[in-house]
Amino acid sequence: MPAVPGTTRECPSDSTLKAAIDERLGEIVETIRHGLLRDALRHAALSGGKRVRPILSLRCCAMVGTSWEQALSAGCAFELIHAFSLVHDDLPALDDDDMRRGRPTVHKAFGESIGILCGDLLQSLAFETAAGSVHGPAITRELASATNAMIEGQAWDTDGGFPEGLSDAERMELIHRNKTGALIRGAARAGAIAGAADEKALDRVDRWSTAIGFMFQVVDDLLDETQTSDHLGKTAGKDRDAGKLTYTAIHGLDGARSEIQRLRTEALDALSGFSEAADPLRTMTQELANRTC
Amino acid sequence: MPAVPGTTRECPSDSTLKAAIDERLGEIVETIRHGLLRDALRHAALSGGKRVRPILSLRCCAMVGTSWEQALSAGCAFELIHAFSLVHDDLPALDDDDMRRGRPTVHKAFGESIGILCGDLLQSLAFETAAGSVHGPAITRELASATNAMIEGQAWDTDGGFPEGLSDAERMELIHRNKTGALIRGAARAGAIAGAADEKALDRVDRWSTAIGFMFQVVDDLLDETQTSDHLGKTAGKDRDAGKLTYTAIHGLDGARSEIQRLRTEALDALSGFSEAADPLRTMTQELANRTC
Repeated sequence: MPAVPGTTRECPSDSTLKAAIDERLGEIVETIRHGLLRDALRHAALSGGKRVRPILSLRCCAMVGTSWEQALSAGCAFELIHAFSLVHDDLPALDDDDMRRGRPTVHKAFGESIGILCGDLLQSLAFETAAGSVHGPAITRELASATNAMIEGQAWDTDGGFPEGLSDAERMELIHRNKTGALIRGAARAGAIAGAADEKALDRVDRWSTAIGFMFQVVDDLLDETQTSDHLGKTAGKDRDAGKLTYTAIHGLDGARSEIQRLRTEALDALSGFSEAADPLRTMTQELANRTC
Repeated sequence: MPAVPGTTRECPSDSTLKAAIDERLGEIVETIRHGLLRDALRHAALSGGKRVRPILSLRCCAMVGTSWEQALSAGCAFELIHAFSLVHDDLPALDDDDMRRGRPTVHKAFGESIGILCGDLLQSLAFETAAGSVHGPAITRELASATNAMIEGQAWDTDGGFPEGLSDAERMELIHRNKTGALIRGAARAGAIAGAADEKALDRVDRWSTAIGFMFQVVDDLLDETQTSDHLGKTAGKDRDAGKLTYTAIHGLDGARSEIQRLRTEALDALSGFSEAADPLRTMTQELANRTC
């Protein structure tokens, strides 16, 4: 059967995409002159993360556009914001975590002042990268909007201050949709924008990524309850012990498992209008629903 | 005498410009839904700062362009970065300051976690504002470049890590040109860019703002030695007591005074190619050289 336009997008493996992402991130970090800050940036951004957000960008771009490379800067910008959020969330005044990805957190390895400044610098590097990407102005707006929401989500998680009249379930959803969901949704949208998606395709990507963004956090909550620290590379059971508003704390383990199924279905439904060009996103949906670390 | 083109730029008073800046900053802060974060943002960004950076942007824009309003977003973006830097620099792990502009610092008033998140949010709001400004992509690049340099400057100030072989005087200059100078230079350049400056005008603005950026910090170092905390609205003598690399610590009070004169002359020289359209910048040069708080 001859190739049908719109179904023959280049579709490299995750490891190919990760290698391209890591290479670009490495180039960005090397622009920094301050030795200790550069080491801290390497520790924070080049330490083998899963690269979920930039891979989302690249795969959404490849689905709607001509090449995943067009979204490389956009994806890396979202990864840098993710890295910044981890570095600051780990600080003693916030989540106070000593370990991340099986290694000391940045402030543990480099001291608290470098921890704060490293996070700050990751954010400005993210915006510099977004501004230089294909469709830079639109990507920068997506990045800013997602970052604002993420920080508000973290503030609700750490300091409360919810709008009046919300139930615990609604508060938890507000945290999750902002703290984790906004960046995942933004990364997917930015990838589609870099690929010059039309309005209809962007709307589908928006629906899909909103579903998997929430699913990602529900899976996180489930893993925090069911896996060991060694397996996760970070402290397990910490959210529960801190009395945080997690999905499992409110709806239980079975509630979390059935919500993951519901969100998986919702995400796949959002992709139903796409041909096999969306197959990599379908695979990602399954992988994110089934992940164990 | 009839008005000569290029010499009749609208030139409102500082208080008119400050009112416009404060109004725009207020609109930006009000977009945030989290109540405590919004209060912290107001405390950090709407508490009567001198607005040196955005006024620089507006006056540079008015000098080269048709209207200062074109640089309002660009100027506010630089003010938001300045506000973010103050909030984070005041944190216990960095400069550990309790007072700022005669009031408690953000982390003292709202707690350390909100202090960190408020600074983070000021940065993302800054980039959102820059991206939405006239000539947004170029303004965003200026902002990112200045912010990167500022953070590196803060890291040299707090954590050392200088390139090898630098004297104390060279180290001090590296700190000052990055920590304070980069943002002042960037704000002036961004204003000129918003006003569609040609290359020659932008080059002059660059020379002028590089001189006044360094001068601003030498004046700061002098005031830190010679003024009371009450007068400054922040803790005086703190840099000296902390053994920081200030201009006065290395070159003495008289050395600082003569450097301020030298930089004033250099700044005015950079403006010599402009007609009376540059008079507001000449006035600013004198005011910044003579300021007492």
